[in-house]
Amino acid sequence: MTARLSPQQLSEKHRPTLDRALETIRTRAYWSPHPEHPKAYGESAPADGLAAFRALRGTRFELDQPGTDGWTGGEVSPYGPALEIEYPHADPDVLLPAMRAGMAAWRDAGPETRALVCLEILARISSRTHEFAHAVMHTSGQAFMMAFQAGGPHAQDRGLEAVAYAYAEQTRTPGAADWSKPQGKRDPLRLRKSFVAAPRGVSLLIGCNTFPTWNGYPGLFASLATGNAVLVKPHPRAVLPLAMTVRAAREALAEAGFDANLVALAVERPGEGIAASLALRPEIRIVDYTGSTAFGDWLETHARQAVVHTEKAGVNTVVVDSTDDYKGMLANLAFSLSLYSGQMCTTPQNLLIPRDGITTDAGEKSYDEVVADLAAAVDGLLGDDARANGLLGALVNPDVKARLEAAADFGDVALASREITHPDFPEAVVRTPALVKADGARKVWEKSGESEGAGGGAEVPYLSECFGPVSFAVAVDSTRDALDLLRRTIREKGAMTVGAYTTSPETERALEEVCLEEPAQLSLNLTGGVYVNQTAAFSDFHGTGGNPAANATLCDAAFVANRFRMVEVRRPE
Amino acid sequence: MTARLSPQQLSEKHRPTLDRALETIRTRAYWSPHPEHPKAYGESAPADGLAAFRALRGTRFELDQPGTDGWTGGEVSPYGPALEIEYPHADPDVLLPAMRAGMAAWRDAGPETRALVCLEILARISSRTHEFAHAVMHTSGQAFMMAFQAGGPHAQDRGLEAVAYAYAEQTRTPGAADWSKPQGKRDPLRLRKSFVAAPRGVSLLIGCNTFPTWNGYPGLFASLATGNAVLVKPHPRAVLPLAMTVRAAREALAEAGFDANLVALAVERPGEGIAASLALRPEIRIVDYTGSTAFGDWLETHARQAVVHTEKAGVNTVVVDSTDDYKGMLANLAFSLSLYSGQMCTTPQNLLIPRDGITTDAGEKSYDEVVADLAAAVDGLLGDDARANGLLGALVNPDVKARLEAAADFGDVALASREITHPDFPEAVVRTPALVKADGARKVWEKSGESEGAGGGAEVPYLSECFGPVSFAVAVDSTRDALDLLRRTIREKGAMTVGAYTTSPETERALEEVCLEEPAQLSLNLTGGVYVNQTAAFSDFHGTGGNPAANATLCDAAFVANRFRMVEVRRPE
Repeated sequence: MTARLSPQQLSEKHRPTLDRALETIRTRAYWSPHPEHPKAYGESAPADGLAAFRALRGTRFELDQPGTDGWTGGEVSPYGPALEIEYPHADPDVLLPAMRAGMAAWRDAGPETRALVCLEILARISSRTHEFAHAVMHTSGQAFMMAFQAGGPHAQDRGLEAVAYAYAEQTRTPGAADWSKPQGKRDPLRLRKSFVAAPRGVSLLIGCNTFPTWNGYPGLFASLATGNAVLVKPHPRAVLPLAMTVRAAREALAEAGFDANLVALAVERPGEGIAASLALRPEIRIVDYTGSTAFGDWLETHARQAVVHTEKAGVNTVVVDSTDDYKGMLANLAFSLSLYSGQMCTTPQNLLIPRDGITTDAGEKSYDEVVADLAAAVDGLLGDDARANGLLGALVNPDVKARLEAAADFGDVALASREITHPDFPEAVVRTPALVKADGARKVWEKSGESEGAGGGAEVPYLSECFGPVSFAVAVDSTRDALDLLRRTIREKGAMTVGAYTTSPETERALEEVCLEEPAQLSLNLTGGVYVNQTAAFSDFHGTGGNPAANATLCDAAFVANRFRMVEVRRPE
Repeated sequence: MTARLSPQQLSEKHRPTLDRALETIRTRAYWSPHPEHPKAYGESAPADGLAAFRALRGTRFELDQPGTDGWTGGEVSPYGPALEIEYPHADPDVLLPAMRAGMAAWRDAGPETRALVCLEILARISSRTHEFAHAVMHTSGQAFMMAFQAGGPHAQDRGLEAVAYAYAEQTRTPGAADWSKPQGKRDPLRLRKSFVAAPRGVSLLIGCNTFPTWNGYPGLFASLATGNAVLVKPHPRAVLPLAMTVRAAREALAEAGFDANLVALAVERPGEGIAASLALRPEIRIVDYTGSTAFGDWLETHARQAVVHTEKAGVNTVVVDSTDDYKGMLANLAFSLSLYSGQMCTTPQNLLIPRDGITTDAGEKSYDEVVADLAAAVDGLLGDDARANGLLGALVNPDVKARLEAAADFGDVALASREITHPDFPEAVVRTPALVKADGARKVWEKSGESEGAGGGAEVPYLSECFGPVSFAVAVDSTRDALDLLRRTIREKGAMTVGAYTTSPETERALEEVCLEEPAQLSLNLTGGVYVNQTAAFSDFHGTGGNPAANATLCDAAFVANRFRMVEVRRPE
């Protein structure tokens, strides 16, 4: 194989970006090398991207992978059309050994070259952000602008962040050391030691339906940058964005002189369920997973030959205690509940509001007033259909629609969901979020979890994840009760995010204490253009990895440090 | 509580040591602040230490812990005498909540203060190294000098190393950051973010019989330095060294103004087996364990509410291919096999020697010659009883003795074990190591592991860990076979160490490749005063955490980074 991309070219092109990323994960300041604005990608990029996406439809997505034993694929856009793309189906007995073949050279290349090749992959993905945006939109159901930003630059940022952490972690130990131990009057003991970051093996990425790139890139790039091969198993409804990612990775690897099979795709036939069997293969030594709690727990328990990173379900809470910007709070919450129809793992589900009302800059507001004002804020935000379509996107699958339609079973509906027609995609299922009133009296939830199935937590609907556009306005007897319910919810159900509004320093301190003890990430008094459901790479951590919603965070040292092992060879000098 | 040790005092006393430790884990050079020579501790230290140890015998070891519901303890020294020390037995329903009570203040103290208090604990332990040496000797069976060095300064080094890693990891993220995201012509989005290292909860240390302090300190100090409370559950045969450690920790914590209950002891009644029930308690969020593979695997599978670090059984191999220092090789191996009667997790078990012999600086040596010369080297090393007693120590428990006595069942005994009388402790079971010849033909081991219990690996004695002074001189058909058997052994059985002797660069490279791929730590051509079974803190990694012998290494970032979670609080500026 002849490398068309030399190490020097890679270094000139990408080392400054890597250095900036390394600096930013230390300062946690704002930075991104990937523009958020569609216009930043050039005048012809929008049309080119759309054309490239359209050209993929109705074709076979060739990857030239070993062990391809057929073709499969049946993605249907949440906006209506079937994508009609077929992907290679892999025989793991052939593909996995082929993936291992290139690992020694990839390992020997060292952390810097690996990081730079990863940045080259990201640069190729970035240059096709418009095409990726359409692919993400038509698999996740995200509206175009969100698919563009979250599926493009924000996902690329998270991938780059993982590369930076991986590089930093591997280079904390020097490549070699001279060790000389004094022995009094005798000669010192001397050893020459070498240290090599050795990969664990093949890493398995199990992708999700809603954020195939954003949730997939951290694990993919963390494993690749630490010397592992990566097998990408996309969600059957969201194959295309990850197939395009795999293709970009294979091309960049080959051009840099490495084995393209270091990254490969495994797509399942309908109902085949290959994730479980792949995850137990002895070659698979790392798993990254985003999805249901049941399968995440199964992976953690059974894939014992692997290091398993999971992001599972959670129940996100916003504590509403008081505010000095009532309008800002309502607007901020309305946006958070509406964005992508609440289909984010970070969307608030439970708004804990004191039954006796709250103090605001607009006067005292009763529980009913807060709920009505929030409902009105959502209505206002989504009153215009074009704007609503741009914010909501489409429901990703029939399960979400079914849950939304059952919302009235959970309690009084304070804000009913409304159907929106999409001008371009009449088949798209677009719905505004529903807000349900719920009783947060201590006696309702205090026994939750103690006897599920026998009158315990299973009967409190707001204490289970209701993924999609259903939120609960939970009337609590006091802010103290809200804090206790918050603590119980995080501890038992997990939380990717916690939000809170308060003007009381004591309440603020108590909220921080709950989030430190459980632990969960806390956003306080967001009233402007930052929302509780959004995190920024290089600065914000996504989840904590310390409560049941996830066993890892994006991105910290723990997320990368166990993907490789430091192998020492020592010999007399 | 009034702090008698102010932060300033702690900083003046310990910050330079912490800085030096932080520097050394980056350079991997030689360094230790804890002297190895017994004389370095002052003229009266030996007598004082012995007197202090003797004064403990026949007493109750008071710790003033909450939830003490009785007294227990039945340690008998491997050298003969019963220690007759009683320890508090704890009710976990009382003790565990009490341990949590001081965690918020310990967390709020921050990484630096926690590190400095840990160094104060280590300094107090260090000042009593002679006393600890007797405690380790009379629980592990180590000879005095080894108990002194491995149980004292080397264990303290490993504890300090863990503190340094913990400090480095917690301070990689700043305490606060200002985040400002440009919005074109509009005002930038601004957030103030704070980041706090939040502990997981109570950490459980499950101690081992052979190296209670050396194997216990890394987990104990890594968890304490990252803000967790630590419950110490010693092996019932080796309570005293960890009880003394807990006492030192409680005293230092209290004097620095923290809750003494952040470190506590849990000793079991005979046959009570509390490790399993403690490990499943919801309060326990971290487990550190050294011991059998069966219980280690059980912990990894069942203690799912916790992050579990295990060091389990392994089969350590030395590949003997060729040497340019035959005498040095024999002397080095003889010492490695003899030290602490092979009761180290790092002692070589299988010496793979080509059936057709090896090339050496003393001419070609047949397999039988190598085996005979090694047996003679062991005999020579241990010919003098005083020297033998000083190297071997006592067998730690009857299981080891039983395995040694069964050595002849495994094959031809090339070197029989010899009984040695200890001049001071006639009841001590002191034995020289046995060397058994074994057939390493490929057909013998190739099917191993494929059908255990049905003619597979279970019948190849050298492919199971035979903990204690039994090693196998395995006759292989070629060095290539040796490499394949090495790979299979590491992959299926795990290995804490791999050693090799070769003058061939190709063989050296092939050995490195096996150790990089499996992964395992490799010592090449050791012929002087460094032995394959010894590792030095700050420079050598103990195990890799990448093969079945252990899921963690001492000490790297992965060992500390998941003991705390970074909790972020963000708010508008």
